Amino acid sequence: MTLPLLTRRGDTLRYDRERGIVLVLDRRRYPHETVFVECADVAAVGNAITTMVVQGGPPLAYVAGYGLALAARAWKDRPSDAQRAAIIQAAEALRRTRPTADDLHQIIEHALARADAAILDGDDAETALADFVDAQVKRGDKVAERCGRNAAGLLTEGDQILTHCFAGAALNWMLYVAHVEQAKPLRLYATETRPYLQGARLTAHQALAIGVPVTLLTDNMPGFCFARGMFNLYITAADRIALDGSIANKVGTYQYAVLAQRHHVPFYVLGYDGPDAATPTGADIPIEERDPSEVLEFAGQRSAPPGAEGYYPAFDVTPPDLVSAIVTNRGIYRSQRIADYLGDGEAPLDIIPLAQ
Amino acid sequence: MTLPLLTRRGDTLRYDRERGIVLVLDRRRYPHETVFVECADVAAVGNAITTMVVQGGPPLAYVAGYGLALAARAWKDRPSDAQRAAIIQAAEALRRTRPTADDLHQIIEHALARADAAILDGDDAETALADFVDAQVKRGDKVAERCGRNAAGLLTEGDQILTHCFAGAALNWMLYVAHVEQAKPLRLYATETRPYLQGARLTAHQALAIGVPVTLLTDNMPGFCFARGMFNLYITAADRIALDGSIANKVGTYQYAVLAQRHHVPFYVLGYDGPDAATPTGADIPIEERDPSEVLEFAGQRSAPPGAEGYYPAFDVTPPDLVSAIVTNRGIYRSQRIADYLGDGEAPLDIIPLAQ
Repeated sequence: MTLPLLTRRGDTLRYDRERGIVLVLDRRRYPHETVFVECADVAAVGNAITTMVVQGGPPLAYVAGYGLALAARAWKDRPSDAQRAAIIQAAEALRRTRPTADDLHQIIEHALARADAAILDGDDAETALADFVDAQVKRGDKVAERCGRNAAGLLTEGDQILTHCFAGAALNWMLYVAHVEQAKPLRLYATETRPYLQGARLTAHQALAIGVPVTLLTDNMPGFCFARGMFNLYITAADRIALDGSIANKVGTYQYAVLAQRHHVPFYVLGYDGPDAATPTGADIPIEERDPSEVLEFAGQRSAPPGAEGYYPAFDVTPPDLVSAIVTNRGIYRSQRIADYLGDGEAPLDIIPLAQ
Repeated sequence: MTLPLLTRRGDTLRYDRERGIVLVLDRRRYPHETVFVECADVAAVGNAITTMVVQGGPPLAYVAGYGLALAARAWKDRPSDAQRAAIIQAAEALRRTRPTADDLHQIIEHALARADAAILDGDDAETALADFVDAQVKRGDKVAERCGRNAAGLLTEGDQILTHCFAGAALNWMLYVAHVEQAKPLRLYATETRPYLQGARLTAHQALAIGVPVTLLTDNMPGFCFARGMFNLYITAADRIALDGSIANKVGTYQYAVLAQRHHVPFYVLGYDGPDAATPTGADIPIEERDPSEVLEFAGQRSAPPGAEGYYPAFDVTPPDLVSAIVTNRGIYRSQRIADYLGDGEAPLDIIPLAQ
């Protein structure tokens, strides 16, 4: 049993330094087709992010980071001030693509600092940016593995786990370690996650590839299943974690968290590298509202009658009292204590060897 | 502003006595197309019910009733014992099509008694059955109007109403009376209601035809909207009401009822002609589980990867403490007092004239 494609982000997105191209797995078509989109400029990168070619906080942040390398390349032979301005302009455009997840905003901020330093030192900014993002991808993959391994330790034989949307590489690691390495039998219940069906496509595919049986539910069914006692765990990722332990994640996460608490089912959040130091509370997390037309159709086929309006909040916020624990690369935190993560220092990620 | 097609059931289903055909509006294709399916025997009627050509407790019950008339017709020239046996056999087959809604089971029981009496008296059983169901359709339309008018009295200007699935003719009456007759501005938020999209198709279309603006949501969004304070009412129908005030309705109804209570939003149930005298509690309501493959696709297009299983409970049960009131043709009841309905006698339905 091997780790499926979405486990290591470097396999799904890449900066081609020879051609000056960002290659991105098209997650709208995966797993039905495995196709890479080629982005040759910042606009194409922005478009890949907004149209959900890439999804998930860290992956889309890496793609944006490589977008800055494209901007540096396009302005390579111009005065350094002009190149710097172009990179800053690209950063502004890319920041606007998705407001909710913090990874995007953090990586852009750090990338800008690297570009500035390179330009000041007379180094090649494109190379500095590509090197920086490459290192971030490697670091992120280690964070995901560590987070997933910590989460696997929370699972026991026979767990029936509800999940919503696609919780990313840490979910793959959690399932792989628990199911393959530790031989714990599990069953995953995945909501299909309208309108983009990340659950029906990405989550179901990755879990099945690891060997974990998957039962698909439409998004209106978890309540019934909670009432029937079908789940003993609820696990999702988070696109942003506030210092008060609130978590923002795919819209729907909150309503299932309310049901989990009512039915005494723990809710664990795969928190990757922890909270955003710049976000004090859940109320400080901006919620992206996407094009309402996406709610009115399914895979390009119109489902609503003419005149119907749509509303598409892409995320919701779950307050800390509904979150049992946040699992990070540094360990497992009670939601109310997640701010401690920031003081706990950089954990020695390398003590966990990368599995093959 | 006229009442849309699904308001009067007689416009959507009919027994053609000359041809011996049950005509049924295909609600899977409506409103995109207005097509009637012709059923010439009991098997075709059963198929129309199980495949959702017709949906909603009362409409599918009427179609089943007309199915018995088809059985009587097919065995008209045979000995009366044989005809009676054929009608009973048809009743058994039709009862099995949908276990949850009580209308189907009640209408079949009463229809069998009518057929027996006709056969005993030497009358034509087909005519007796068709007459009986015709009268039930007329009575049911009056019940729906009365229930809808009572519900309209609960609405006030500016109400922002969440609804789930399609609450049927009483919903149309409620919206028509409140919006057109009483000129109260309203907005309806309809969940799309996977997998059959009754919300996106039927509810949205009927409300828009009445002039009520509709915002469509995917089934994972109500929790966010409750948290944002976007709804001040939650209203659905019920496929069965138990004597303890529990209600069974389209799967998802329960999870939104939990959220409504958490956010202090009243939940009103359009209860038509009240509880089922034979169902003491919510635990006594059988929950239909439909073909899991319906969860794995959308409009015939496969959305899940090979190997994914599906689970499709078609209904859920909401306990009485989550239901603020049940609105019936006889008046409005606290859920815990719904059994009183049975002792309240037949209300004079005809005092409300049918609107044009």
